[in-house]
Amino acid sequence: MKKAVFYHAGCPVCVEAEESVAKAIDGGVYKIEYVHLGEARDRIAEAEGAGVKSVPAIVMEGQPFHINFGASMEDVKG
Amino acid sequence: MKKAVFYHAGCPVCVEAEESVAKAIDGGVYKIEYVHLGEARDRIAEAEGAGVKSVPAIVMEGQPFHINFGASMEDVKG
Repeated sequence: MKKAVFYHAGCPVCVEAEESVAKAIDGGVYKIEYVHLGEARDRIAEAEGAGVKSVPAIVMEGQPFHINFGASMEDVKG
Repeated sequence: MKKAVFYHAGCPVCVEAEESVAKAIDGGVYKIEYVHLGEARDRIAEAEGAGVKSVPAIVMEGQPFHINFGASMEDVKG
């Protein structure tokens, strides 16, 4: 299985992206993990290390894809 | 089948998003159409009407999701 991590912060834009884009990804090919960075603050460094600049974002096989704009990582950290 | 339209302009960021995000979408649920707006210029108004501000973007069931940033619609039109 390929690996995808969907990072979000519970924001409305995040929820839209999760319900449409993330949920549309083929679960037979990708194992998707959902990470709420407002709750799992110990995962923030990992997300930034993967190149995540804002949420919602999905990191697929290590490559970051930002989906619309909900909040910056600075907002998430703040 | 649900409907998704992936709009791009052949840019490197577009190709990355197509190969990772668009190709990961479950083809058993969504019928995805790929539209190169540099070539299919008659589809630009349709994309803008769906709320597409930049490419690459995927419109899923009428809702636009911008994936990273390759080019603005102004660049595509220009």
